[in-house]
Amino acid sequence: MTDAVTGIANAHAARSPVLLIGGAAPLGLRGLGALQEMEQVALLRPITKGAWSVAETRQIPEVLTTAIRTALSGRPGPVFVEIPVDLLLNRIELRLAPIPERYVHRSAMPGDPDLVVKLGHLLSRAERPVVIAGSGVWWDDAVKPLGSFADATGVPTFMNGAGRGSLPHDHPLAFAQARGFALANADFVLVLGAPLDFRLGYGRTPTFAEDALVAMVDCDPVELGRNRPLEVGITGHIGRVLEQLVDVLPAALPARWEEWRRRVDVREREARAKLDALCVADDVPISHYRWAAEIASAITPDTIVVGDGGDVVGCASKIVRLSRAGQWLDPGPFGCLGIGPSFAIAAKLLHPDQRVLLIAGDGAFGLNGMEMETAVRFGLPLTCIVGNDGGWGQIRNPQLSFWGSERAVATSLPTTRYDLMVEALGGRGLFVTDPREIGPALERALGSSDVWCINVALDPEAYRRTGQVSMAI
Amino acid sequence: MTDAVTGIANAHAARSPVLLIGGAAPLGLRGLGALQEMEQVALLRPITKGAWSVAETRQIPEVLTTAIRTALSGRPGPVFVEIPVDLLLNRIELRLAPIPERYVHRSAMPGDPDLVVKLGHLLSRAERPVVIAGSGVWWDDAVKPLGSFADATGVPTFMNGAGRGSLPHDHPLAFAQARGFALANADFVLVLGAPLDFRLGYGRTPTFAEDALVAMVDCDPVELGRNRPLEVGITGHIGRVLEQLVDVLPAALPARWEEWRRRVDVREREARAKLDALCVADDVPISHYRWAAEIASAITPDTIVVGDGGDVVGCASKIVRLSRAGQWLDPGPFGCLGIGPSFAIAAKLLHPDQRVLLIAGDGAFGLNGMEMETAVRFGLPLTCIVGNDGGWGQIRNPQLSFWGSERAVATSLPTTRYDLMVEALGGRGLFVTDPREIGPALERALGSSDVWCINVALDPEAYRRTGQVSMAI
Amino acid sequence: MTDAVTGIANAHAARSPVLLIGGAAPLGLRGLGALQEMEQVALLRPITKGAWSVAETRQIPEVLTTAIRTALSGRPGPVFVEIPVDLLLNRIELRLAPIPERYVHRSAMPGDPDLVVKLGHLLSRAERPVVIAGSGVWWDDAVKPLGSFADATGVPTFMNGAGRGSLPHDHPLAFAQARGFALANADFVLVLGAPLDFRLGYGRTPTFAEDALVAMVDCDPVELGRNRPLEVGITGHIGRVLEQLVDVLPAALPARWEEWRRRVDVREREARAKLDALCVADDVPISHYRWAAEIASAITPDTIVVGDGGDVVGCASKIVRLSRAGQWLDPGPFGCLGIGPSFAIAAKLLHPDQRVLLIAGDGAFGLNGMEMETAVRFGLPLTCIVGNDGGWGQIRNPQLSFWGSERAVATSLPTTRYDLMVEALGGRGLFVTDPREIGPALERALGSSDVWCINVALDPEAYRRTGQVSMAI
Amino acid sequence: MTDAVTGIANAHAARSPVLLIGGAAPLGLRGLGALQEMEQVALLRPITKGAWSVAETRQIPEVLTTAIRTALSGRPGPVFVEIPVDLLLNRIELRLAPIPERYVHRSAMPGDPDLVVKLGHLLSRAERPVVIAGSGVWWDDAVKPLGSFADATGVPTFMNGAGRGSLPHDHPLAFAQARGFALANADFVLVLGAPLDFRLGYGRTPTFAEDALVAMVDCDPVELGRNRPLEVGITGHIGRVLEQLVDVLPAALPARWEEWRRRVDVREREARAKLDALCVADDVPISHYRWAAEIASAITPDTIVVGDGGDVVGCASKIVRLSRAGQWLDPGPFGCLGIGPSFAIAAKLLHPDQRVLLIAGDGAFGLNGMEMETAVRFGLPLTCIVGNDGGWGQIRNPQLSFWGSERAVATSLPTTRYDLMVEALGGRGLFVTDPREIGPALERALGSSDVWCINVALDPEAYRRTGQVSMAI
Repeated sequence: MTDAVTGIANAHAARSPVLLIGGAAPLGLRGLGALQEMEQVALLRPITKGAWSVAETRQIPEVLTTAIRTALSGRPGPVFVEIPVDLLLNRIELRLAPIPERYVHRSAMPGDPDLVVKLGHLLSRAERPVVIAGSGVWWDDAVKPLGSFADATGVPTFMNGAGRGSLPHDHPLAFAQARGFALANADFVLVLGAPLDFRLGYGRTPTFAEDALVAMVDCDPVELGRNRPLEVGITGHIGRVLEQLVDVLPAALPARWEEWRRRVDVREREARAKLDALCVADDVPISHYRWAAEIASAITPDTIVVGDGGDVVGCASKIVRLSRAGQWLDPGPFGCLGIGPSFAIAAKLLHPDQRVLLIAGDGAFGLNGMEMETAVRFGLPLTCIVGNDGGWGQIRNPQLSFWGSERAVATSLPTTRYDLMVEALGGRGLFVTDPREIGPALERALGSSDVWCINVALDPEAYRRTGQVSMAI
Repeated sequence: MTDAVTGIANAHAARSPVLLIGGAAPLGLRGLGALQEMEQVALLRPITKGAWSVAETRQIPEVLTTAIRTALSGRPGPVFVEIPVDLLLNRIELRLAPIPERYVHRSAMPGDPDLVVKLGHLLSRAERPVVIAGSGVWWDDAVKPLGSFADATGVPTFMNGAGRGSLPHDHPLAFAQARGFALANADFVLVLGAPLDFRLGYGRTPTFAEDALVAMVDCDPVELGRNRPLEVGITGHIGRVLEQLVDVLPAALPARWEEWRRRVDVREREARAKLDALCVADDVPISHYRWAAEIASAITPDTIVVGDGGDVVGCASKIVRLSRAGQWLDPGPFGCLGIGPSFAIAAKLLHPDQRVLLIAGDGAFGLNGMEMETAVRFGLPLTCIVGNDGGWGQIRNPQLSFWGSERAVATSLPTTRYDLMVEALGGRGLFVTDPREIGPALERALGSSDVWCINVALDPEAYRRTGQVSMAI
Repeated sequence: MTDAVTGIANAHAARSPVLLIGGAAPLGLRGLGALQEMEQVALLRPITKGAWSVAETRQIPEVLTTAIRTALSGRPGPVFVEIPVDLLLNRIELRLAPIPERYVHRSAMPGDPDLVVKLGHLLSRAERPVVIAGSGVWWDDAVKPLGSFADATGVPTFMNGAGRGSLPHDHPLAFAQARGFALANADFVLVLGAPLDFRLGYGRTPTFAEDALVAMVDCDPVELGRNRPLEVGITGHIGRVLEQLVDVLPAALPARWEEWRRRVDVREREARAKLDALCVADDVPISHYRWAAEIASAITPDTIVVGDGGDVVGCASKIVRLSRAGQWLDPGPFGCLGIGPSFAIAAKLLHPDQRVLLIAGDGAFGLNGMEMETAVRFGLPLTCIVGNDGGWGQIRNPQLSFWGSERAVATSLPTTRYDLMVEALGGRGLFVTDPREIGPALERALGSSDVWCINVALDPEAYRRTGQVSMAI
Repeated sequence: MTDAVTGIANAHAARSPVLLIGGAAPLGLRGLGALQEMEQVALLRPITKGAWSVAETRQIPEVLTTAIRTALSGRPGPVFVEIPVDLLLNRIELRLAPIPERYVHRSAMPGDPDLVVKLGHLLSRAERPVVIAGSGVWWDDAVKPLGSFADATGVPTFMNGAGRGSLPHDHPLAFAQARGFALANADFVLVLGAPLDFRLGYGRTPTFAEDALVAMVDCDPVELGRNRPLEVGITGHIGRVLEQLVDVLPAALPARWEEWRRRVDVREREARAKLDALCVADDVPISHYRWAAEIASAITPDTIVVGDGGDVVGCASKIVRLSRAGQWLDPGPFGCLGIGPSFAIAAKLLHPDQRVLLIAGDGAFGLNGMEMETAVRFGLPLTCIVGNDGGWGQIRNPQLSFWGSERAVATSLPTTRYDLMVEALGGRGLFVTDPREIGPALERALGSSDVWCINVALDPEAYRRTGQVSMAI
């Protein structure tokens, strides 16, 4: 159970519904010092929506269903149920512990119609509106309504978290690089399923304009007004609220914001052009951008991409273009390095017909890379491409900026041959030092029915030289 | 802060939104052993929806507003914010800690329209429907929609918790005594804002018929499916869902259930007649029923009634008739004896133009009766009538039933002269032993501008003799 | 159980061993919403040394004995055991759950002999030593060894907490008023069973001299070195360590410190003379000091004194002189107002042959004064003398000092007639306004077999005028 | 921090003092949703002796020293201190936060002399005494006094936990295989620093004779009387208590128990002979016993052995013979698989001049085997020998016993080539299938300055065939 703590804490931060079932020392020996007797429920409480210890065999179904309902209700999240081992050795009649049905009642709740009208008015009157589409869009299965809303309004849209890909990268309203410009200049921001946390500068200046009006739609009313006052806050299913909203909006909106869209688009293209220039570098050791560009080329719409790392994933996220929601998974707001192999394995299990590509930093891969053996054992073909810049870049680079080049503590790693390690574990491996080899390697790996590790040696200095140092606070 | 724990635990069980602000030992001395340094946040966590310790003076407004939003969101409940005393001695510029506005966004969320239609179909097809209207009706301010729904459908309605009085006692669909019959025979139960907890027999047999279909509307989706599978579970504002429901129901329903209503009504009248017979007893010592009947006569629609006790409140709740929602407050699902004086004081503060009557058992009054001094000090006229049966009846009577007359442990009390005590505290008192004096005494007290305690000596044996022994599990 | 939280939190701060047994909702219904189902164990954890929920009937003895052992081991403190009600309804064979014997093994642990020798050397070399004797002296039953140590060494001794009275007030080494002088000038402080918390200025300047050497003996090694480095820290039974220490000390010590004792004594007498001058005031309304002096005169060696209040107890503690350890109980480090009646009742139950006097402030008595009815009910004669200065002085006076006379919030109280209240509850009362009546009233009350409340009207301004304003941080 | 939870939980169960320092989201942003903001202190509470969040930069030294003192006091254990990142960016004058010295005062506390005398009497009168020497012997550094005590008394001694090796395997009083016989026939058991938990059958029958007298010496008085009443329980330093005890014992004891020793010795030799017979098997695939015997031969007195696994470590622990305390580390009472590589690395860092051998199961090695890269990176030569029986034997074998050969769930593993993996990570590897190759391989590896993995293919069925199936409850 303790080995699951990191994953559960991550799910808690990411609002992912998860049911964790734990064994436990026998109830009948509690307090006597049985093997692995510990306060599991108390331990899990701070990182779950609920944690329970079952007290009688016949309660197992009721407690499990309560846990599942809790995980799926309102703001989703992980739950924990502990079943002492002696309860599992009892036999009882099934009628005493029937398996409940009809115990979860989730529905697509509409928003308050009056508030939807108010939101419609506010949006209609805006001059420079922006939409932020966050993870809630994914969890509410609101991708299609978001598309309809975009078509109906023409508002520039930025996506974050699990909302990435909700509008495909080639949608005319899908922007990414111009986010700083757009948010700082918007007079109205509609936030869909994204908390105003550190990823959005807490909804405050300098990220948001001081006098911008902000509205939010979320499944969790506790988020409505956090960190920044809202003009309108609507609790409800994002998809249904967007449908309600489209119904009350006038038809002429797209035309109204043509100039604003054009200004955002200019910024987007400028930033993109700068990135493109970095991507063509054919230096050896390979630069982060070239590596990311090769990956981007290999990703097809049916490829699920998992990013697990700091700088290498930060770089890749700027270059890789997504075609659909659910295509990109990453460490999320918990910044949980090491999630890569398990996320990739889960993705492949759920979608055996899709290709799965894990993009990993060498530090992050060092945490759970051995789980590639699990993929081998269960016959789950997937490809890991390691951006191996020999260190914990996202820590090392701010250290160097802060204290000067003399002092970077505990952040250097050797160029570990993860490719050979995966071969040892029954998969296949390739060590790449020439940028021109990346593309063919990915093509070969993603097309095969093996578990692959493509280990690409990157230049540790290259990324910092491009000025991409962010201190993660 | 520790003195507030009982009240907060009670609010947690009763879903009452409460903000508790606590002082705390200085942050700058934390861990050194300052006066009253303790783990307040950890202590309050299990009985609040959230508990926070403010860490900087400028955060006080943000933390307080987060707390308030949490208390009011979804399922309401208490919250706690601790402000270390040294933070209160700082002076900061107001602009660094602006008082937020627009930070709470509660709205009357409609239910999922598809589910409302489904609920309408199920209800229409029912042959013996029953409605349970619980505390959610009060918290959602859904009294009026409930009345409209009742008029439109003609379903027999039972009220519990803060839902009492939602239909006035003389409404033809308001039933109380026939609840056991109605629930055991209903083929469809619509539960509005009432959890299926011990008060409703966990929604299971023998309280509910085994094959009855059950539907529920609640603000808290976690309750939807708890303890019993539901045909339909709707998250939403009860008032708005009832309005949606009326819109989809056929018009002819009241006629359809005429016979069913008549059967329920017969049972109601029979039970009521039995109670009425008990109420005319003019024994000395006075019987619980006569005492309750005299109280019932004194209660006008503008009287707020607080019940604080076990048997005496159980008896009074059967006899007293309510004219409106919000007229009756009691210890609720936490069974929290001692709430009487503070609830009565709060009621009078909120509604200075209404009369406030506290019905107390002598055990319960012994917990916080001294707070009558607070009422005197703040000039808040209210009347307490004590049903003084010299003991903890709700514990004593089950003990006697279980173990025989030999053994009733720690449940006997003397006939304490609470009337004199309240006089000593600056109020007025009357000790009553003759049933005919109760009425005039209440008239005098409720009509005055003083704080009164009418201390009525009851027969400890009378209530048990009527067979009214319930073991509270 | 929640009503016990304040008392348990107080016991936790005061290191008092307490076993609290709580009922609980049935284990078999856990999670379903039974009456009073709540997270009792989680709630109690932060304020106990341990909290357990029994899971099987046969475990009740083992869990209870573990709890008792925990309460009594090392640093004493409260513990909690919750027994779900359904476990109490089982019947099992006694052999399956034998009542354990020999399950607590407390002993008077000696200190490390090497450290005792070191301590002896340090003490012998000191020029201006001081002893602080705290609550540990009481809990370790070390009063007699402390006396022998004092006689053998002649070190000026100050007592606090439950250590008060360990040396009787007329012992030549027992000092009180000169504490500030002595600590600020001492070059060596031996702290016995007293944490260096706020009551001792955290063991830092200005309370302690910056370069004083400090040594400590305590049952809890965690206290050894907290807030201030120690020259020697010894874990062990204070009595036994003192005996070990006397054995290693040279004989000539008392003579060595004659001059130092004389200096401390001069300060003590000066301060005492000032207090004595305040005590003779015969003003009406009565001054706090005169009130305290009359109380002091009435206290015999066989009187147990409980103090429950702020300023009135602060004043009384300076004037009342104690003849033995265990004679004085007060709110302790938790500053827990309201403990008076229950402490007094417990004292009388334990020592029915001793007289019990409760000294209470009017604010503090307003919290739990109604418990005097409990004393009446159980036939426990005790006397409460209220110092009724019409307010929460310890809050009001600092407010007035801090903000000026305009602003004292929520700190004024009327002169409540608690004497009449206690009469109403079956005891006896007297309201006193003339200082000359206090003595006779106390004589009458303490000599009777009744429960008494002597309610003395004090001058709210008098205490502040003497400059006795302390802000309790 | 969450990645440390398993290790901290293990330390908590094993009573290992550990200080964990955690970063944390900025205090100044607490509650706003900063990166990795989480309830770290609440999470760690249930598995630490104490957990703190520092609130001001100048408090860092005081809080850290309190944490260290707590970890080392009484019963040792892990502690946690969280330092919000913004506190680390402050600069303050050193005098405001001096680094404390003399803040931990651990000493070798003697036992209560009266109890030592009592223990001496009881032991002297015993006819069939046994000593259990547990982890406390190690933590109290009491190996030498244990040896003197053994020589002075001649009591057969069994060791467990970190007490293993306290008497070297060739000491005439060091027994292991006869433990079942000795405990079941002893009339007196002296338990030194070993809780009566599942490892000792809770001190109850059938492990202990029903009428045996039991005495215990432990640093933690809470353990004294847990699960079984004690004749004598002594809190104190085990070494010092043993010295006290020897002083009060008569000289003639060894002779008195000659016959009893002989009976134990006979059983020991019989059991040992059976094991020896199993150890010579030269089957291919290799049997667990032969594998263990080869390891045993390779272990010199200066070799530190870490066991990480279930069946393979259980088997090895029976065959490997220890020459000194501290020579053997294993998962302990928490049964914490995966501790191997980190324990081995720590052992090598502390004792660079000693050889370190990690004995691992293939399942256990699969958890953290990648940490061998850490050993390579830091230049820490150590050898891991994997007993690779292709599964989770300790789970699989009881499943097969319980449900029959049809059903063993989630317990099979392939024969993973960990040797190749370690080679990939920069170490060296060898795959062994012939029992005769094990010895030379170990000799080569342990004598080298490389990090080695010797991966030995074992017969999955062999161990179960010898009847060695234990269900770990």
